[in-house]
Amino acid sequence: MQKKHVRKLANKKYRKETGLFLVQGEKNVSELLASDFVIECIFCTQEFLPTTMPHSVSCTLVTAAELCSIGTLESNDSALAVARQAPPLSMADIVSKGRNLLVLDSVRDPGNLGTLVRTADWFGIDTIIASPTTVDFYNPKVIAATMGSFLRVKVSYLELVDACRGLQKNKYSLIGATAAGGTPLGNTSCNSPYALILGSESHGLSQDIVIILDQAVTIPRVGAAESLNVSVAGGILLHALIGNNNTAPI
Amino acid sequence: MQKKHVRKLANKKYRKETGLFLVQGEKNVSELLASDFVIECIFCTQEFLPTTMPHSVSCTLVTAAELCSIGTLESNDSALAVARQAPPLSMADIVSKGRNLLVLDSVRDPGNLGTLVRTADWFGIDTIIASPTTVDFYNPKVIAATMGSFLRVKVSYLELVDACRGLQKNKYSLIGATAAGGTPLGNTSCNSPYALILGSESHGLSQDIVIILDQAVTIPRVGAAESLNVSVAGGILLHALIGNNNTAPI
Repeated sequence: MQKKHVRKLANKKYRKETGLFLVQGEKNVSELLASDFVIECIFCTQEFLPTTMPHSVSCTLVTAAELCSIGTLESNDSALAVARQAPPLSMADIVSKGRNLLVLDSVRDPGNLGTLVRTADWFGIDTIIASPTTVDFYNPKVIAATMGSFLRVKVSYLELVDACRGLQKNKYSLIGATAAGGTPLGNTSCNSPYALILGSESHGLSQDIVIILDQAVTIPRVGAAESLNVSVAGGILLHALIGNNNTAPI
Repeated sequence: MQKKHVRKLANKKYRKETGLFLVQGEKNVSELLASDFVIECIFCTQEFLPTTMPHSVSCTLVTAAELCSIGTLESNDSALAVARQAPPLSMADIVSKGRNLLVLDSVRDPGNLGTLVRTADWFGIDTIIASPTTVDFYNPKVIAATMGSFLRVKVSYLELVDACRGLQKNKYSLIGATAAGGTPLGNTSCNSPYALILGSESHGLSQDIVIILDQAVTIPRVGAAESLNVSVAGGILLHALIGNNNTAPI
């Protein structure tokens, strides 16, 4: 791929047309090289050039300044790769695994989605279902914020009410996070498999999701903030759920 | 203050010289107006103009486009205020209150500091001690990420080793978060008052802090991510600590 086309991958439409995405920075590119993702090409500095660079990968040496002009990061003195997007998981793929899930209802901020992917990876959740209104997983800011976890966690964009009803048919518990009014975390119990559902930064969960929940959970508040950041709330809830054996209090 | 000087408040040196800082966006400015912070001036759109605007505040009507050019936000259709920084708390002020604390060792990212301030506020922590290497609390990106909590949480910049020793002399337990090797969260106990210490995004806690900890705590990992985002880790730990009575497991 020519340099002038790489930066166009910051654009969602171009990513969709090409099926490609940008991976930037030392940690993300190093982890990409060790993964089974298909790499189209790499631009890197002499300092980054790994001795283990696969022979099949087209690699162009550039300066740090060139890396910044080709890509989207303000500073990047190591590498940038163009990789092929993984095929999305279908609903059938997801439920056949029977594993616990994270579900996102209109999470708009790329940093929040990336951080949630990283947190899911820490807690052993490898699949996220996202509403079509959630920011694109392959947005460069999302990929950067995952700190390499984009390689291990799959995000599928599905109509959320249909997907949630499909999960319930397959014996999933739907647990929704609400800033107020839910059962206080610590006084609830939960069966596996579960789907933890988080809402948007501005409006929380959609009403059509709230009415089909098996359980609404609220993180107890001691102070005065109106709400928690969605990725912080997700971390607190996943930690509580992971530490939980079937039907034990969370 | 003239419009052309307002944007200079994005600069730390200018904030220090003037003792002022920028507050932007509807939620933050509305909460500022209801607080006892001293407001130097406000620029706002006709739509924002509150009926309760204090008579003593100099208010200039502007368009949304002007708000963006005066301030630092990419989009702002409501208001921008210039406010006076609160006097910092001394170590004596802090220990005299005897309340639980959050301590930050070189947290560099403004979004992370702002989110930690918001999370502290949710969990009733009103004081943060930060190393001089931590990003400035009055950075506009920090203030934005606090979602109004900058009004209730005070951040004091102190030499961290001295401050931590001072806390220990005043019967504080120093609890440090480490990505690996600490006592697993859930198998530890904690006395109040405590100071929860979080390290930098890249390097975790400094070695000279690690050696004086009363307790190192690690959030158990189930999956493959190398670490958690510092504000997510802070949320999980504060939630565990707040739910904890003296000497109960956390």
